[in-house]
Amino acid sequence: MSETIFTRIIEGQIPSHRVYEDEKVFAFLDIAPLSPGHTLVVPKEPAATLDALSEESAAAVGRVLPRIARAVMAATGTRDYNVLQNNGVAAHQAVPHVHFHVIPKPGDARGLGIDWPAGRLEAEDGKRMAAAVVAELAKG
Amino acid sequence: MSETIFTRIIEGQIPSHRVYEDEKVFAFLDIAPLSPGHTLVVPKEPAATLDALSEESAAAVGRVLPRIARAVMAATGTRDYNVLQNNGVAAHQAVPHVHFHVIPKPGDARGLGIDWPAGRLEAEDGKRMAAAVVAELAKG
Repeated sequence: MSETIFTRIIEGQIPSHRVYEDEKVFAFLDIAPLSPGHTLVVPKEPAATLDALSEESAAAVGRVLPRIARAVMAATGTRDYNVLQNNGVAAHQAVPHVHFHVIPKPGDARGLGIDWPAGRLEAEDGKRMAAAVVAELAKG
Repeated sequence: MSETIFTRIIEGQIPSHRVYEDEKVFAFLDIAPLSPGHTLVVPKEPAATLDALSEESAAAVGRVLPRIARAVMAATGTRDYNVLQNNGVAAHQAVPHVHFHVIPKPGDARGLGIDWPAGRLEAEDGKRMAAAVVAELAKG
């Protein structure tokens, strides 16, 4: 796994507006925020994508997300928000080090914009897809 | 916390295409998928929003996300994907029970559509905001 700008931020070689740190997690303000308070919650483990992250680091990030969300929303006076974690350039990932965005949604024009091209899951497709996912999970 | 359709899915009163279950987490296919394999990862604890979820449930969801992401991507043959968790109607939350979407991104037309109205964090604003978040976190 190669070093990214996030490794250098975590190690303090590049300054950041840090809001939280523990043994496994580092959180700081995004310098290109979608709304005030936009925060990145990052495992110190330098996995490029979530699928490559250890369960321990993923659990540590998950554990602290409610606390950080509460603090960001209290600090910004916002109620609604999105948590987003992108994997791969096609999915809008800019830095190849896992990061969870906590993005306040103060109104239509600010925060994350979402397009939701929902389809419909047919029963047979659902059965087949669920079986395929279960089979993959069984591989460990 | 009131019961939603997800409680009834978790308890088996409403059928679903389940892909994973443990003591604290339940995962199943979204019936209105943005792309094939679109999966919902849900804590059994019926918190409406992430800020209201216990750390234990949040850690349990976080821990299993890499495994489920690997399985969904392997089953669908997709490489890129988004993980999204919405809080509040303005942030596109439809069911008031915490759920993490795992959404394969097989191409431009399918999967999550993202609009990214990025701003720029000025140093003074960043200092002030980070201090406000840190102060909120210190409250516990």
